[in-house]
This record gives sequence, structure tokens and C-alpha cells, in this order.
Amino acid sequence: MPISRLVRDLPSTVPFVGPEALERAQGFPFALRLGANESPFGPAPEAIAAMRSATEESWMYADPEGWELRTALALRLGVGVGNLVLGAGIDDLLGLAVRVFCDPGDACATSLGGYPTFAYHVAGYGARLVTAPYRATATPGHGCTDLSALAEVAHDERARLVYVANPDNPSGTWHEAETVREFRDALPDDAVLLLDEAYAEFMESPSPTWHPEDEGVVRFRTFSKVHGLAGARIGYAVMPASIAREFEKVRLHFGINRVAMAGALASLASDHAARVVEETAIGRARLVAELGARGYVCLPSATNFVGLGAGSRERAEAIVAGLRARGVFVRKPAHPPLDGHVRVTVGTAPQIEAFLAAFDDLRA
Amino acid sequence: MPISRLVRDLPSTVPFVGPEALERAQGFPFALRLGANESPFGPAPEAIAAMRSATEESWMYADPEGWELRTALALRLGVGVGNLVLGAGIDDLLGLAVRVFCDPGDACATSLGGYPTFAYHVAGYGARLVTAPYRATATPGHGCTDLSALAEVAHDERARLVYVANPDNPSGTWHEAETVREFRDALPDDAVLLLDEAYAEFMESPSPTWHPEDEGVVRFRTFSKVHGLAGARIGYAVMPASIAREFEKVRLHFGINRVAMAGALASLASDHAARVVEETAIGRARLVAELGARGYVCLPSATNFVGLGAGSRERAEAIVAGLRARGVFVRKPAHPPLDGHVRVTVGTAPQIEAFLAAFDDLRA
Repeated sequence: MPISRLVRDLPSTVPFVGPEALERAQGFPFALRLGANESPFGPAPEAIAAMRSATEESWMYADPEGWELRTALALRLGVGVGNLVLGAGIDDLLGLAVRVFCDPGDACATSLGGYPTFAYHVAGYGARLVTAPYRATATPGHGCTDLSALAEVAHDERARLVYVANPDNPSGTWHEAETVREFRDALPDDAVLLLDEAYAEFMESPSPTWHPEDEGVVRFRTFSKVHGLAGARIGYAVMPASIAREFEKVRLHFGINRVAMAGALASLASDHAARVVEETAIGRARLVAELGARGYVCLPSATNFVGLGAGSRERAEAIVAGLRARGVFVRKPAHPPLDGHVRVTVGTAPQIEAFLAAFDDLRA
Repeated sequence: MPISRLVRDLPSTVPFVGPEALERAQGFPFALRLGANESPFGPAPEAIAAMRSATEESWMYADPEGWELRTALALRLGVGVGNLVLGAGIDDLLGLAVRVFCDPGDACATSLGGYPTFAYHVAGYGARLVTAPYRATATPGHGCTDLSALAEVAHDERARLVYVANPDNPSGTWHEAETVREFRDALPDDAVLLLDEAYAEFMESPSPTWHPEDEGVVRFRTFSKVHGLAGARIGYAVMPASIAREFEKVRLHFGINRVAMAGALASLASDHAARVVEETAIGRARLVAELGARGYVCLPSATNFVGLGAGSRERAEAIVAGLRARGVFVRKPAHPPLDGHVRVTVGTAPQIEAFLAAFDDLRA
């Protein structure tokens, strides 16, 4: 069969190999799932109840306009319903952003080793990835993402899109709101900042705010992390209404699961997110302290995971392999200078215990 | 913000306006939802139970390889796991097919007034739609889709893709397996037949079979119709393994809802589909007979809906509007020669009663 030139020339790689595939390969299941920054606190009880009830309605398509959820989000965020586009997670929305903004060959700038699904879509839609390396170190509020270098690349390559996650994944580090705003102002006038805020709820300091009609930025949020609904596949983007209408021209209108919509709506109305943020902060402090007591320094984190410094790429790989052999699923950054780190999701208190036991066993 | 040339020039239309948007516009809810061929028999009880139980696991991403479901499907269909690609419904998979097979400007052939989401993706990915009209009439086993005209268009335009739904939507009519096979053989050698079998389970006669490694055809199936899981967004395509690997390069790997996967798996293992097919056949015969008694002829149907002949486009539009005003959601084909029909989903026995009552009220 004839394959399009674009797809034929794409590499056969996937953004992430799932833990289930690793389990099938290794022949035993993971006891601890700390590799995808899923929420160990689960969905809100209110969301579970709403989803259970909605399963019987699964014979009906969900409202393709997602009106009820967008209205609830608009009220909460102080934006218009027309400023919101729903998607099957940020992954889906990032692909739409590349389609909406990029002509073939257009440059899209991001950190080398940043979120691989963005790079996947850039290649998949025929745009061109340009990168700036992360910085090796960070302090609280001044993250690994090298904003100066990214702005420079964006100018040099005349980037149409600039993707930054704040807080960042995979480092967990963050920049303060004012720094991100200054970064936006330093970008080329016709570049669009794609600001991935998947972990923003975990930040103690405020996220940068923009008027929803601001022409320079599209923000992405998700129910996958603090809301504990990764498996539901639902997220949203905030953007000028005129741009949202462009997304409407290409998005999959019947692409979101009806049960997921019910769960997201119920979770928004609950106080679950606030509780998860609190529990995560306690667990993260404990995990960082316990690892510190063992001589391992973690990168500053404003997320539900930590970047454990292993000292070298080889040692980080050995820790990942050793933990997996002990039934603990973790991942690590692939590219220097962060590839000497192991990314560990902050678990519940018993999960942190179990993680430390496996870690100690590995080091013994 | 800069919009890509492709998206900027797309029209601001959506494939379908949802019933919820119509309800918001008209100010009252529909009492009967017979416009989207959703299954009035709902999901399998086994699927509901599995989905209810899976809601608690929604904090975990689904297996991006969908291994368990693909294995179950492979066993049932007698194909390899590598011949199957999962998607968030056929809509999702059709978009992927256009990406995988089409260079910009490539011709994609289908019936004028056929499934609008295919045309939406063809435009959205920069390919070019070419069409052949439906035939105005059909007999059982010899449907409205004009296969000779489609094959001619495919040759004239050097079509890369040819989309046919069998049974067809929106007409409900069908061609026998042998006819579809002959049609495939009549297409250009390098054209790919996209065979949408969303309603195939409702056919009394067998669907055409192909060796999964046959280079000429990609078949699409869904859990939205006979399985009553439209809101779950899950479907699959059967194709040669080498082509499936091309789909892997561009599909959204974490795009399917975890609860949906559990529901699909449980529904497959149940006898629900067989029961729904049986009930639908009884209801369809009753609906056709009752409409016939009122002087309305329906197109032959091998689906869970019927094409009610209204006599003219104007009368069909009046029936749609009149039914909607009476709380009954139906849709109609948009293009000649089928635009004089109203498409009515076959409901449960009480729903057929209620539909006929509204229809009689409208005619009074």
C-alpha cells in the first residue's frame, strides 16, 4: 500500500513504552507504579461515584461541545467558554496545536529531552524540532529549563511554537510566574508559547496568569495529574476565542469519553485536588529527606515527582533497572544534562516506604 | 497568532451538531434520542459491571498497546495482534488513515453525502475529496452506494483512498460480500479501500472476509453501535501488520480511556451483541411495517436505523423539524438523492411506540 511521504520517513519510535509492555517483557507485574506520575491518591471519591453512575449512559456519545464541563471550567478560571478547548488529554491538544499553527517545516522550539509527545507530534505533522539543552542545576523557583537559550533558539530559528512545561517534566523544577512572563515577552512577536501546566496545581507559588485573549500564549491543563484521572484522557487548553475556533476546525469532535466528562466535572466540584496537593507536599518532603539521608540529592520539585540525582547516566540506568527488577516502575530522563537523574513519582506513605525498601535493597 | 495555511483555509463546519447543542438552542431536552444510531439497548450488563469496577483505576493510564483487548479481538477474528490498531472510535482511525496514506492533494473517493467525518479528515489533513452520487433506490443486498461510479471516480482521479461504509450510513442499505470483493478488485491497484463496518454486526448476510495481510483493504469496526458503547470512544481497524506499524508512528498512544477498554473487553466476552442484533431486527421490522401502514416506504436496512422515505427534501426537513419540536431527535441525509429521507434509529419497543405517537401527532 502507498504510505504518505511524511509517515514513511518517520522513525518507528513511540513517546513512551507503557509499564504494561515492560511487565509483559519481564514476565512479572510491577508492585509499585511510580514511573508515569499518575496520582497514587486516585480519583476523587465524588468523581468515582459520578463515573460509576455514568457508565450506564455509555451508549450515548458525550456532548461534542463539552458544554457543561467547559462552563464549569470557565467559571472557575474566569475565562469565557469560548476560550476553552477540551481534548483527550494534553497529548491530544498538543497535536492539535501543531496542526493549527505550523506549516510544513516550521520550527518548534523546546528543551532537548523535554516532553517526548510534543516532539512526536512535531515530527508527525511535518514541522521541525529545534532544541536548547536543559541546565544541569536548578534552585527553587529557577528551574532547569534554560529560558534564555530557548528564546535565543526561537529567534535564530524563527520558531512558530515554543513549548515549555512549568513546572517542568522530567526535571520537576519550575520558574516563577514573573520569569515565565518575561520569557514570553522575550520571544519573537509571532511565536506562540505553548505553556504546559500539567503539574501547575502542585506549585506553591502562583502560575503566571494571562488575559485569555492574550495572543501570545496557549495554556494546557489536565485532569490526569492532581485529579487522578490519567486513564480518563481529558484535559483542556486556554486560548483566545478566535484561536479556539481554529482548533474547532480540526479537533476530533466526538473524541472524549462520556464517563471521563462526568468524572472531571465531579472532581472539579470536589476538594480532592487541594487534599492531593497537601499530601503530595508532605510525601515529597519525606522522600527528598530520606534520599538525602542516603546521600542522594534531588532536584527542587513543584510536582508530584522528584528528580533523584544518581551521579551519572550509568548509575541512573542501573537504579532504574534495579528498581524495575524489584517490582518498582520508574523512568529516567533520556538526554544530558538530566540523564543522571531518576524520576520517581511521590507515592502514598506506604508506597514511599516500599520504594525506600526496594531502593535500600538495591544499594545493599 | 499565525495559523497554518491549511487550517486557516478550512471551513468552520463540524461533522455533526450534537443533540445537546440542539437542546440548548431549542430550550428543552429530547425525550427520544434516535438521531445518532446509538444503541437504545445500552451496554452489556457485563460491560457496565466491568466499567463500574474500572472507574477506581482511572488514576492509571490505559496500556498504550491495548494488548489485552487486541489479543481478545485477534482470537475472535482469527487475525494477528499485529493486524489490529485501536482508536478512540472509527472517527479517530479514519483520521489516522488519511495521515498514513495521503500526501497533500491526494484524491480520496467516497459517496457524496457519505459519512461526514471522513470528508472532515480528508479536508483537515490536506487531501482532496472526490465523490460519486448515491443511487436513489436500493434493493436488499444491492445498496445505494454506487460502486461502479465510485470505481470509475477512483480510476479517473487516481484515488489513493476509497471510503465505503457497508452497511452504509446514512442509507442503511448494503451490498453483499461478493459484490464488495468485486468492487475492491475493480479499484486501481495502488488504491486502498477503507471499509467502514460500523454496522456490520447487524447484517444478516456475512460481511466480506479478507486475509488480514491483504494489501488492498483496511476494515474499521467499533464498540459504539451493537455493543452500545458510543460514549466510550473505542474502535479498531484490521490491516496488514506492516501498515499497522505505520499507524503506530502517528497515533495517539495514550488516547483511549481505561474504563472504555474494560467495557469493550467485557462486552466482547458477553452475548450482548447477539441479543441486540436480534432485538434490533424485530424492532426494525415493526418500525418499517408501521411506517408502511402509514404510507411511508423505508430503504432496505441492515443496520440499527432506517431511511424513511419522505418524498422530497422539503417534506423530510419538515419531518425532522416536527419530530424535534416533539422531543424526538432524528437526523437526515444532507445531499441528493437521499435528502428526501429521514434517518431514524431503531429504538426499544416502548421507544418505537413513542416515536410513532410523535410521528402520528406530526401528521395530524
